[in-house]
Amino acid sequence: MSELLAQRLCGELTKVVLIDPHTHINPHSAASKTLADIMGYHYYTELAHSAGMPKGRIEEPGLDPKVKVGRLVESLVNLDNTIQVNWLVELCRKFFGFTDDRITLDNWEALYDRAAAKMAELDWEDQCLKQSGIERVFLTNDFDDPLTGFNTERYIPCLRTDDLVFHLAKPEVRARLAKATGIEFAGAASLRRAVGMLFEHFASKEVRACAISLPPSFSPQAVTANDADPALKGLLSGRELTCDETVTVSRFVFWTLAEYCVEYKLPFDLMIGVNRRVYPDGVYQGQDLFDQRVSLIQYKDLFNAFPQVTFPISVLAQISNQELVSYSWIFPNVVTNAHWWYSNIPPYIELDTRARLTAVPRNKQIGYYSDMYKLEFAWPKFSMYRECLSRVLAQDFVIARRWSEEQALSLGRQVLRGNVETIFGV
Amino acid sequence: MSELLAQRLCGELTKVVLIDPHTHINPHSAASKTLADIMGYHYYTELAHSAGMPKGRIEEPGLDPKVKVGRLVESLVNLDNTIQVNWLVELCRKFFGFTDDRITLDNWEALYDRAAAKMAELDWEDQCLKQSGIERVFLTNDFDDPLTGFNTERYIPCLRTDDLVFHLAKPEVRARLAKATGIEFAGAASLRRAVGMLFEHFASKEVRACAISLPPSFSPQAVTANDADPALKGLLSGRELTCDETVTVSRFVFWTLAEYCVEYKLPFDLMIGVNRRVYPDGVYQGQDLFDQRVSLIQYKDLFNAFPQVTFPISVLAQISNQELVSYSWIFPNVVTNAHWWYSNIPPYIELDTRARLTAVPRNKQIGYYSDMYKLEFAWPKFSMYRECLSRVLAQDFVIARRWSEEQALSLGRQVLRGNVETIFGV
Amino acid sequence: MSELLAQRLCGELTKVVLIDPHTHINPHSAASKTLADIMGYHYYTELAHSAGMPKGRIEEPGLDPKVKVGRLVESLVNLDNTIQVNWLVELCRKFFGFTDDRITLDNWEALYDRAAAKMAELDWEDQCLKQSGIERVFLTNDFDDPLTGFNTERYIPCLRTDDLVFHLAKPEVRARLAKATGIEFAGAASLRRAVGMLFEHFASKEVRACAISLPPSFSPQAVTANDADPALKGLLSGRELTCDETVTVSRFVFWTLAEYCVEYKLPFDLMIGVNRRVYPDGVYQGQDLFDQRVSLIQYKDLFNAFPQVTFPISVLAQISNQELVSYSWIFPNVVTNAHWWYSNIPPYIELDTRARLTAVPRNKQIGYYSDMYKLEFAWPKFSMYRECLSRVLAQDFVIARRWSEEQALSLGRQVLRGNVETIFGV
Repeated sequence: MSELLAQRLCGELTKVVLIDPHTHINPHSAASKTLADIMGYHYYTELAHSAGMPKGRIEEPGLDPKVKVGRLVESLVNLDNTIQVNWLVELCRKFFGFTDDRITLDNWEALYDRAAAKMAELDWEDQCLKQSGIERVFLTNDFDDPLTGFNTERYIPCLRTDDLVFHLAKPEVRARLAKATGIEFAGAASLRRAVGMLFEHFASKEVRACAISLPPSFSPQAVTANDADPALKGLLSGRELTCDETVTVSRFVFWTLAEYCVEYKLPFDLMIGVNRRVYPDGVYQGQDLFDQRVSLIQYKDLFNAFPQVTFPISVLAQISNQELVSYSWIFPNVVTNAHWWYSNIPPYIELDTRARLTAVPRNKQIGYYSDMYKLEFAWPKFSMYRECLSRVLAQDFVIARRWSEEQALSLGRQVLRGNVETIFGV
Repeated sequence: MSELLAQRLCGELTKVVLIDPHTHINPHSAASKTLADIMGYHYYTELAHSAGMPKGRIEEPGLDPKVKVGRLVESLVNLDNTIQVNWLVELCRKFFGFTDDRITLDNWEALYDRAAAKMAELDWEDQCLKQSGIERVFLTNDFDDPLTGFNTERYIPCLRTDDLVFHLAKPEVRARLAKATGIEFAGAASLRRAVGMLFEHFASKEVRACAISLPPSFSPQAVTANDADPALKGLLSGRELTCDETVTVSRFVFWTLAEYCVEYKLPFDLMIGVNRRVYPDGVYQGQDLFDQRVSLIQYKDLFNAFPQVTFPISVLAQISNQELVSYSWIFPNVVTNAHWWYSNIPPYIELDTRARLTAVPRNKQIGYYSDMYKLEFAWPKFSMYRECLSRVLAQDFVIARRWSEEQALSLGRQVLRGNVETIFGV
Repeated sequence: MSELLAQRLCGELTKVVLIDPHTHINPHSAASKTLADIMGYHYYTELAHSAGMPKGRIEEPGLDPKVKVGRLVESLVNLDNTIQVNWLVELCRKFFGFTDDRITLDNWEALYDRAAAKMAELDWEDQCLKQSGIERVFLTNDFDDPLTGFNTERYIPCLRTDDLVFHLAKPEVRARLAKATGIEFAGAASLRRAVGMLFEHFASKEVRACAISLPPSFSPQAVTANDADPALKGLLSGRELTCDETVTVSRFVFWTLAEYCVEYKLPFDLMIGVNRRVYPDGVYQGQDLFDQRVSLIQYKDLFNAFPQVTFPISVLAQISNQELVSYSWIFPNVVTNAHWWYSNIPPYIELDTRARLTAVPRNKQIGYYSDMYKLEFAWPKFSMYRECLSRVLAQDFVIARRWSEEQALSLGRQVLRGNVETIFGV
């Protein structure tokens, strides 16, 4: 009964047209062209590699797309249990007329060709969005992205700032900053001006969020320009910074970003907890992991210093969810943001959704984003989330708390769509 | 079927008259007088603030109770999903004849007036306890509470010791200690005597527990009087203590408390893991949060040094529950104590109850306390717990392990009531 | 419906004959002789002690087996809720014709006698294995075990290395090493040779894994022979090592073991997270606990340095499971290994299984081992796991993802049996 109820709720929630508040879509090439674009997603390459396929077979230079897909299909026999492969099968069934429940050595070629034909249709991008029930899509833009040549009504700019905070010691990053702003910064003051120009440019293109991913060790603190100057000058001189200096630079830039978020009235998306390149021999984008020993207490000063800035927060470690729930329940400027990466699987989505819906104000929860690189993934990922959400609404609200189905759907619609509008002002 | 079974078990467990083993009731004013007393509970003010209401509107000096309730009701539209607002609605339905499922701008005034009339009845305190199925209530008494003017048969004293362990550097705390004991301590020896007088006084008033809340960083250690003396003398001289000295003082006082718990045969309630004033601009009592990076290994020396003292332990972080289960399964003097604060929501209560009932001896589990400030909250809070407990008994014992319903109820009654009697000797 | 489906799946999975990939069986005395062997398992003695029985009553020297069982039975009234006592009842029902649902003061003597008669049958060991559906059993062998006098086809040697890594400072450990290898090591080079001889000996006896349990603080690093030599020489001189030196020795030996695992093509079982002797006054084997503040990031260098070695990993803290899932999903040489000790209870097994089956390649998951000391425990422990596994297969695969029952069973059989064969090469 609970299962039928959940399906009924899910059916209704599937009618809600969505705004996807975080993706890695390239607006100049948003949809896929072949199944290789789809199966080249790091989830499939890293799982195939993990299950035993040598990296060289996956990342061989000049590999033909169809040959690559054929190789990856060999691995699916070891991966069909994963929810990621379930996304793949579901999107093939939705978009490409696939009717089997497994992609195998026997059926993949026909699927490849049928998919290629479909994706070659001129309006495939529009079709895909429409069939997926998505009308607007947030991007992840490099700080020096010109933001031209695409429809910013459909594709909403978002200023991604990892490079500025963590990689300013790299000459190429500084060169990109100089080129984008016309400022070759010489210290804290001019760096701040350069960052301001980035915000001004993004604001002129209807940016709706500033965003960054952060390692577990990071703890933001206010750093004065005076305190930052020696480290910044050391960095400009080309000498290697000490650990403390590196931290000082990161904190200074990060705090500066938060200050501009006040000025430009932008939410600041924090994606907390990733360690980069833990497995350097892994496939492309399949090298990062985490250390779950992290706490939101590290962000205490930030949350207190910027009451005017909304911080939509994603946590990588599932065990961080209770802190996220609790900090969102206390701090007006902290909101929960979806289910990120290693926590984006149904067992964790359900646990996390259950706690959030039970203890965080309903206007402070962003239910989900797809994090996708190609448009075809919005459908299966949001479907997965809607199923989890519907189970929680059915069990914890309609059954346990005797809500009407309409009351439960209203809550579901708010976290799926309504809060994206109010929190990001779209 | 599982749902009906759980309801049947819950119905039976609701008949058990309870002793509430931890509250913040003021025995001189135990029940509420208006809905403002009820909605002034920090859960509602902090959630309203978190959802967007300025602190000034909630804590305006001299605010009329009815006006305050009217303002808070405005926030409920953002909070009706929370279990805390569910408590509010449930208690209004139980006690005040409220028949709607939401408190709204349209129905709150009538509710306010009806509630005020009910609470004005001379025997409201008795009625409330009787309807709630509660017969005795543990208090949280300041160390200098005279413990007079109330019925210690109904309201059981409990010596709360946070001020002694963590705030002895404040002159007002020392003044209160001097006034309560007649001893102006001059060093470790006289401080120990003063603390002993507090225990003697509380023992004469039928105290049943010593209690304290502890930050994640705290790690108890034995400190000799000789080692504590320099820090205590520094503190008495009014100079600021070093971090190490502050720790030494806290550890010395804490260890002294444990020694007196041996002498007075008192359980020592430890509530582990809260960071105070993380959000200093929050509303009253809505400023504390936590850092989940804490371990019961920090209490290893304590548990080994005091085999005669029972330590009922509450943990703030849900992830601490497995350690609590495991330490209770190994140490004879460690028992599980209810579901505290940020862990006191059904998704976490169920997970934690499931593990405890599966792996901790049944005579070592205190199921629940209300932690309430006003009597009206015992009903909805214990109801929430009973529903969680019943679901676990139904699924994990009656269905999965084929226990009879009566066997399951017997386990339920023991954790709800029986163990409170045996562990605290009431 | 879900419950009936789970039972149907469980019935099928129970037909799979198993290899138990980690136990503490003594192959010279694999089965029990009386109920005292069974109830002497640390789970019963430590729980009885935790529930209030003095250690002296349990561990009284020269205690008659039947008297000991009688005493432990007194405690069961406090322990019948635990899953460990459920194992006990289930194995008595399976093997000894016990028909009650509780072992009590009234029925235990008859049970004791009936069990003793059964276990006195000459082929009890064979009967027990056959009835339990177990055909091969991994051992945990001391490094100096001669590995003679038993059938290595049925009982598979596994080289346990805790003593070498963590207790080389004890003269008796060094004496055992010298005796087993004929080498009295004088430094890193000769120690490495001695360790190599152990591998050679074990390889000649069909060893299938190297194994170790590790404290939360351990973090493996490569240590050169040159860097290890001063600490090893200090140790040989009998002087107390510094903390750093102790760590250096442990790391050197551990890394050496990993190097030999390459040479001998052995998986290296890592059991991560136990603190030994946290409660030194506890009963035998009932003294160890843990600090959950541990991360697999500590093993980053190891996983990167030994791509040729498979690391089946068990984690003691349940919160470590998401890291384990994520590291297994990224690193080809990391696989999930069962549910260990304090995480080996149904609430945690289900959560962990759910996440693993959803996100780890299906060929990289070892479902379960019994960790048993006596053969009689394989049945109830594997039964517990099969029930958890079946519930997850029913809910997450057959119902939520519409897999056929046969597809779900195939996944179940692979994690129960197939992967043990492929990963350990048996």
